[in-house]
Amino acid sequence: MGSSDSGLLGDVADQFVLDMLKEYGELTRERLSAYLPRAQSDAYLFDLVRDYPLRTGKMLRPSLCIATACAFGATAADAVGSAASIELMHNALLVHDDIEDGSDERRGQPTLHALHGMPLALNAGDALALLSLRPLKENFRRLGPGLALRIFEETERMAWETTEGQALELGWRKDNPLGIDASDYLTMVLKKTCWLTAIHPLRVGCLIGTRGRMPLDPMIRLGFFFGAAFQIQDDLLNLVGGAAYGKEINGDLLEGKRTLILIEAMGRGSSAERARLARFLGLERVRRRPRDIEWLRRLIDRTAALEHARVTARALAGAALYEFEHAFANARPGRDQDFVRALITWVLRRVH
Amino acid sequence: MGSSDSGLLGDVADQFVLDMLKEYGELTRERLSAYLPRAQSDAYLFDLVRDYPLRTGKMLRPSLCIATACAFGATAADAVGSAASIELMHNALLVHDDIEDGSDERRGQPTLHALHGMPLALNAGDALALLSLRPLKENFRRLGPGLALRIFEETERMAWETTEGQALELGWRKDNPLGIDASDYLTMVLKKTCWLTAIHPLRVGCLIGTRGRMPLDPMIRLGFFFGAAFQIQDDLLNLVGGAAYGKEINGDLLEGKRTLILIEAMGRGSSAERARLARFLGLERVRRRPRDIEWLRRLIDRTAALEHARVTARALAGAALYEFEHAFANARPGRDQDFVRALITWVLRRVH
Repeated sequence: MGSSDSGLLGDVADQFVLDMLKEYGELTRERLSAYLPRAQSDAYLFDLVRDYPLRTGKMLRPSLCIATACAFGATAADAVGSAASIELMHNALLVHDDIEDGSDERRGQPTLHALHGMPLALNAGDALALLSLRPLKENFRRLGPGLALRIFEETERMAWETTEGQALELGWRKDNPLGIDASDYLTMVLKKTCWLTAIHPLRVGCLIGTRGRMPLDPMIRLGFFFGAAFQIQDDLLNLVGGAAYGKEINGDLLEGKRTLILIEAMGRGSSAERARLARFLGLERVRRRPRDIEWLRRLIDRTAALEHARVTARALAGAALYEFEHAFANARPGRDQDFVRALITWVLRRVH
Repeated sequence: MGSSDSGLLGDVADQFVLDMLKEYGELTRERLSAYLPRAQSDAYLFDLVRDYPLRTGKMLRPSLCIATACAFGATAADAVGSAASIELMHNALLVHDDIEDGSDERRGQPTLHALHGMPLALNAGDALALLSLRPLKENFRRLGPGLALRIFEETERMAWETTEGQALELGWRKDNPLGIDASDYLTMVLKKTCWLTAIHPLRVGCLIGTRGRMPLDPMIRLGFFFGAAFQIQDDLLNLVGGAAYGKEINGDLLEGKRTLILIEAMGRGSSAERARLARFLGLERVRRRPRDIEWLRRLIDRTAALEHARVTARALAGAALYEFEHAFANARPGRDQDFVRALITWVLRRVH
């Protein structure tokens, strides 16, 4: 791919990241398919359950888990079950997120509830979350009960953090509190995004690689900085994404989602602009007009909120690189460690 | 309480059932409260998570689990964690059911999504399902890893069966297939209701009581007959419930829910009536008028569909009593065994 601000070195690094995502992604997809049997066709459950996992995702989360496990001394086969579990749980949460947000598109196609109605989609999300637990049962045989149980507990913790973060974001959207600042935003993102996207894959990978013999706390800091950079890039892509971006452009503005960009624009606008923005955020989604969105885009441009978000994302990625050197100090040198390091800056160059 | 068709013997039996439900229900509620800390107040998650479990439910499922465990030789303390898990999972499923069905009332109060909006309620349902796994972790210490793991697997199976049953019911409501018969109905109820309400509490109780030394298959037959009788009574109460009934009367008709009563009325109506019913079921909920509901109620009365459902429920309860003698043949005589037996007929006399 290679985006506009990456030089030759960036292109080489990008290709390496894409190759690794492909390799570990295919490994995960193969394992996943055992839990999503094609033979079991039914219009009300299994066809829905299979849909999101079969749409082409980046496979970032499972690949991060496998690479971390390998960097700390395990084989990919030791980690692929846990990686499949992470990807299934991610898809389960996407189904419910899309319903909660009233989103129309996911990975370039209509959302599950747009295709099948909300009730069946909600139920299919529950089913996917249940399916995500099945690969963890195999860990008992392969990794022994002690380690398998710890991975199960990590999964429960991750799901809980995600639910708490989701509650914050949805609550803000419902009650429209005006005092949300960048620090509140980062607390929400830590819970909503960072645990699932980075902290959990890193912790589980480290558990498997070291057989539970290393403290996991450094992975929280690394995963937080990395995950927050990832989320801000996600918010940026929602406003400036190109053809490869699979969701509605400006969808976040339409949903009144509290992004760093919106928070910055609000903080830097005049008091009249703040008042208008507050009125806009108080409207129901269907009552937000295209001209409101255009006005908001102009406010964002005038306050340089996009540039501020880009700078913040780069600072977070830098902090993640620093933490990486500490957290991976005892890891084996080689392509798995190189991949995790390269991933940290790649997320800011990705276009979907 | 004592309903119109129970004599003196019924009154004594009812009081015994109510006393046992109270005792084991309070035991469960006490354990539950450890997972729903009052101190942890927040308007977007914990206040919602606590709501349904604190509304007074019958506590039938956890009580059935504890009594079965005790009848097979365990103490109530061995089973109360698993019972708390069952009650939490039940409440999680109620939250999502109410969203999927668009229901307005639950246990005499507005549904969670009516109070807080769909997005936060959906998320709180996810959180409740996660919380339901926590008491199962304690089983590892108290019952040992082998038994704890089997209970966890039973829980996953139950949740999966429930999701499959829910998919069937929601799918029927969406696509409006006209050929659904009593046998399809019982297949759906086996999955949607019987696993959670009866089969799972019986199997887990038996696992704990016998320390896994008895085959669990007889509990499927017992739980199916018992659970199906319970569900038909539930459907009847929705149409004829008194002041104690906590949901909208005729709510099932408004939702177009496929109950045995509706299926019977359809099968016994004239071809013109069948055609009108098919048109009614094809409408969106908001387009179903009060006069349609009145007409449907008259059709149900004229075809004696209520009486047919009552007779079927009694036959199912009879079959459950027969299976009970087999499934509990090796249980200890005493109040726990007596309670499970009495519960089978009590569910047909209950008024909420």
